[in-house]
Amino acid sequence: MTLTAQPTSTTGLDLGPAAALACRACGHRLDLAAEFACPQCFGPLEIAYDFGRVTREDIERGPRSIWRYKSLLPVPSTVESYPNTDPGLTRLLRADRLGAELGIRNLWIKDDTGNPTHSFKDRVVAVALAAARELGFTVLACPSTGNLANATAAAAARAGWDSVVLIPASLERAKILMTAVYDTNLLACEGTYDDVNRLATELAFEQEDWAFVNVNVRPYYAEGSKTLGYEVAEQLGWRIPAQTVIPIASGSQLTKVDKAYGELISLGLVDDAEYKVFGAQAAGCSPVSTAYREGTDVVRPQKPDTIARSLAIGNPADGPYVLDAVRRCGGSINDVTDEEVRDGIRLLARTEGVFAETAGGVTVANAKKMVESGDLDPDADTVLLITGDGLKTLDAIEHQVGPKATIPATSAAVREALGL
Amino acid sequence: MTLTAQPTSTTGLDLGPAAALACRACGHRLDLAAEFACPQCFGPLEIAYDFGRVTREDIERGPRSIWRYKSLLPVPSTVESYPNTDPGLTRLLRADRLGAELGIRNLWIKDDTGNPTHSFKDRVVAVALAAARELGFTVLACPSTGNLANATAAAAARAGWDSVVLIPASLERAKILMTAVYDTNLLACEGTYDDVNRLATELAFEQEDWAFVNVNVRPYYAEGSKTLGYEVAEQLGWRIPAQTVIPIASGSQLTKVDKAYGELISLGLVDDAEYKVFGAQAAGCSPVSTAYREGTDVVRPQKPDTIARSLAIGNPADGPYVLDAVRRCGGSINDVTDEEVRDGIRLLARTEGVFAETAGGVTVANAKKMVESGDLDPDADTVLLITGDGLKTLDAIEHQVGPKATIPATSAAVREALGL
Repeated sequence: MTLTAQPTSTTGLDLGPAAALACRACGHRLDLAAEFACPQCFGPLEIAYDFGRVTREDIERGPRSIWRYKSLLPVPSTVESYPNTDPGLTRLLRADRLGAELGIRNLWIKDDTGNPTHSFKDRVVAVALAAARELGFTVLACPSTGNLANATAAAAARAGWDSVVLIPASLERAKILMTAVYDTNLLACEGTYDDVNRLATELAFEQEDWAFVNVNVRPYYAEGSKTLGYEVAEQLGWRIPAQTVIPIASGSQLTKVDKAYGELISLGLVDDAEYKVFGAQAAGCSPVSTAYREGTDVVRPQKPDTIARSLAIGNPADGPYVLDAVRRCGGSINDVTDEEVRDGIRLLARTEGVFAETAGGVTVANAKKMVESGDLDPDADTVLLITGDGLKTLDAIEHQVGPKATIPATSAAVREALGL
Repeated sequence: MTLTAQPTSTTGLDLGPAAALACRACGHRLDLAAEFACPQCFGPLEIAYDFGRVTREDIERGPRSIWRYKSLLPVPSTVESYPNTDPGLTRLLRADRLGAELGIRNLWIKDDTGNPTHSFKDRVVAVALAAARELGFTVLACPSTGNLANATAAAAARAGWDSVVLIPASLERAKILMTAVYDTNLLACEGTYDDVNRLATELAFEQEDWAFVNVNVRPYYAEGSKTLGYEVAEQLGWRIPAQTVIPIASGSQLTKVDKAYGELISLGLVDDAEYKVFGAQAAGCSPVSTAYREGTDVVRPQKPDTIARSLAIGNPADGPYVLDAVRRCGGSINDVTDEEVRDGIRLLARTEGVFAETAGGVTVANAKKMVESGDLDPDADTVLLITGDGLKTLDAIEHQVGPKATIPATSAAVREALGL
């Protein structure tokens, strides 16, 4: 652990512009540390910052990864000098063909399948690893059902850290193999994901050198999602899109993209213009969209039943904050059926050549629904976040797509098959 | 088709710095067109250039994709204004942990799994699409067993072109699904890949608006691999690594990276320093390494039998040119067993957090072998090309990796399983 003091920190830690932990429920502040629950009210903690002067030019001169935004993240000022997965700066694609199908005139896709393990989880894990190193941890860990397991095991491998990944024993083959290949301590646990998650919290208290990225270093980890918002704005030429559609699992991603937009405005990095964020869920796991529709602040837990397994969090920790953000800016939250999710995956693939996992299908299908309902303004600049890769959820389309025909290898057979 | 004349072209086509087609066998030159075989000797045609002044600054100011090198590629000067997959500028990773295992002091990984469909094939297909548009084609096509099928179908979808993809009917599920999802005309053909390839050549003559990327527009397509060489040099701070290890399928990639290095030197974009390129094959398909070992110029065809299916070309078109390039610069060509390929995949994953397909395992395992044999200088700067993604070849590691244990979801069980 480096002991270089930062002007804004009282702890001797170098965590960049991070100044303190602050409770999102009661506002209580405490020193930066590996804490995740408020000692006064048990509310969730998040990072409070003391930003210095940040310019577009400084960012643009930075590395081609999320570390170009290090002056806005809770990571050491020397973050690039340690091995990490260095994700980010994924493509922002102008999506005219999808836009034509959806009836949106100016549409972009943020394609996070280009990250090192092909999901946005590389962003949050990279920030968690950088903060965990500074906080004195030596083992990277997580409970997960897929993308997070891949990202955690890969980041630990690259850094030369030991890692522990806990998964439900019933997990699919591709996700198990793509985690185990990094030589992590992969433990298949009997029970549901909820059981695994509970076990992780217990272990986080017992094993003091284990950083469970989404448990005891969660306040740092979650900030990694802000980089999606920063990148969208920078890639649009330093402006915030009028409308952003974001999938909801725990809800953290939506609240952090909203936070990122707010920071860019308050730091003067973009013009202060109104924007809306929209939440996308699957009908089979729709606790936040249900609360939104019912006009309540209370997110009632659900038992998930959807093919969008990376979004299947029945009791989303950030649900109430998602409702706040969406209502504040005048967005909305919707949900779609599994059939619509499959159609969304296929629509995105055939119009833009981007093969998304089920979560991407959720985003596209909700965008379609929200144009039809009038929630989305078809004339306003719109960005859809595509946060994971179709190769990890092949089952979802298995019975939907395939060869047009099986034929003898002759040109006559090709002509006949294609009606030429 | 645009009719903007370029100063170097006699055809009315805008294909950037491309000046003519030249036969690699007899040197005969002809106008730029959709030709791939020399009308005089049936030798393979490649692009001859008339480069203008190209500076590092112009390139660095360009887009974050292969189009930053458009002044070195056979593509229209307006290439970025048409929808394409815009691949490239993938990570060049400093690989100290892998280097320590291999005994190479200064090692880098070029990680092409970050491309849109997760292999280097996006580079060649993007160039083929751009050239095909200018040449007047309207349909993108290919015969393929995997990565090329994914890349072709995705690029056509993004461009709004019809596409035809021919595969052997026996292809694996993941590769079929990741092609079919883009809504291409996917035809499963009875027979081997050789049968499918023959069919593609026949169709290329029959269907005049079909651009088979690796058949009738192959001279343009193949140039896309040069961008791997350009990027490695730029990302190293504009210098060519002393040693580059490159997998061999048709052999085109190795010859084009070598060509790229030569162009950078002759254009004064890098210092003129000696470099060596090394070829990597699997023992089960090693026609080029066999010829190299035997000291002959004749590459005798083999019947492939290896898990490295993306490299399994038994009669590689560019084999003789690979031998020329490697012998000219003092490199070497080797091959490794399937068991070593699997070990190579796992070694790369556990040291650097990069999950490569079997071709990447071939590269890593050959590098290991070549350090041990003395072919590779452990003190010279070395780059390994990792050209495809492990998620597409899960079968290769299926029986090699998995959970350390299956346990009850209790902390006692975790401690016992990990010996804590």
